[in-house]
Amino acid sequence: MALKEISSNKCFEGFQKVFEHDSTELKCKMRFGIYLPPKAESGKCPVIYWLSGLTCTEQNFITKAAFHQAASEHGLIIVAPDTSPRGCNIDGEEESWDFGTGAGFYVNATQDPWKTNYRMYSYIVDETVSAFAPICNPIQCPWGQKAFTGYLGSDTSKWEEYDATNLVKNYSGSKLDVLIDQGKDDQFLAAGQLLPDNFIAACTERNIPVVFRLQEGYDHSYFFITTFISDHIKHHAKYLQA
Amino acid sequence: MALKEISSNKCFEGFQKVFEHDSTELKCKMRFGIYLPPKAESGKCPVIYWLSGLTCTEQNFITKAAFHQAASEHGLIIVAPDTSPRGCNIDGEEESWDFGTGAGFYVNATQDPWKTNYRMYSYIVDETVSAFAPICNPIQCPWGQKAFTGYLGSDTSKWEEYDATNLVKNYSGSKLDVLIDQGKDDQFLAAGQLLPDNFIAACTERNIPVVFRLQEGYDHSYFFITTFISDHIKHHAKYLQA
Repeated sequence: MALKEISSNKCFEGFQKVFEHDSTELKCKMRFGIYLPPKAESGKCPVIYWLSGLTCTEQNFITKAAFHQAASEHGLIIVAPDTSPRGCNIDGEEESWDFGTGAGFYVNATQDPWKTNYRMYSYIVDETVSAFAPICNPIQCPWGQKAFTGYLGSDTSKWEEYDATNLVKNYSGSKLDVLIDQGKDDQFLAAGQLLPDNFIAACTERNIPVVFRLQEGYDHSYFFITTFISDHIKHHAKYLQA
Repeated sequence: MALKEISSNKCFEGFQKVFEHDSTELKCKMRFGIYLPPKAESGKCPVIYWLSGLTCTEQNFITKAAFHQAASEHGLIIVAPDTSPRGCNIDGEEESWDFGTGAGFYVNATQDPWKTNYRMYSYIVDETVSAFAPICNPIQCPWGQKAFTGYLGSDTSKWEEYDATNLVKNYSGSKLDVLIDQGKDDQFLAAGQLLPDNFIAACTERNIPVVFRLQEGYDHSYFFITTFISDHIKHHAKYLQA
């Protein structure tokens, strides 16, 4: 794919860049952020993919999370893709903040009018792979039910391959070590949108270790993320550099 | 003044808040950000005032600079005011990005139609005091000349009290120790808007110590600021906690 550099800013001795490219999966122009640590100038570095949530573009994480110092020190490349196709002129794409533009839910849509462009699963997996999942059990929550009905249709058996809790129940890959931070005052936790308990129960059943830290007083904002991002970078660095 | 809390987010064990109040100096509603470190719950803490530059609101510094960890560790309160009055319905206030809304230049305007609301000097000094100055010699640069002509009139002798280089030439207060970081690839440095050399020459003449760090490859963005903000917080903490 041809890449067009949109911006490049030096940060903690590396470079935070934004590129634009024509996505064959999504049939539109897409942007992503990529941080290149200073170590990338002289050798290969592991890559972490940060998948943002509802309403975000590639900009939110790179401007607000303050991950650069830890990534620079650990020699990690951080890729931050956008969260949906944009500007596809699909009827209703701008109507909701939790469906359509900014809310791709990382699925390959099978329903009209979304199926041509809304193929974020393939975009992430085939074109650029890993995650940090706040909506743990979308099949069971209002956001997930709305999005999956719209993108995937009403046959709920088709939803299971995009649901982290369901995936863990059937997981047989390499050994996992999961770290989840969750703000205790997160309004979406109270509203039953995130359902981490279901994910933890599934992990316990399968003997998959999960460190779940319920952080007193923190909410769903980037002020929460920036407080704990260094711990997550270190967690990934431990395995990527082992 | 009556304060209305607009937002409050827990961050590094303290709280990042935004308040709104009716400003008697500016005759309009104003917002400011304030970070309260955990130490503020049990005792008094020193305060640093961050004065943002052109185009900024109270939001830019609090969301992009990643100062929270250092401020939390050093027990410092950080106040980030807005950069101009807003929504005053002054003819031409939205026409330029470098004059009017978002570009108050921290002066008390003496010219119509600005003099009623554009009193940022008094707002900062009387209502809420310290600075970090990127436009070192506004009298000598295009931004400063445009703003000072508009706000203060064409008599240049009236401009001198708002020019850092001129103020240093006549400084007789307590001992100073100035730290300035400047990106070497800053487009506004090349364009002659910032003029740090004039400020350094004035300090040298008056035997005022300045550490001026010209940072190779860095620009004028928050990616530059976030890289060096911890050094500045430490610099202030050294004196505030002495």
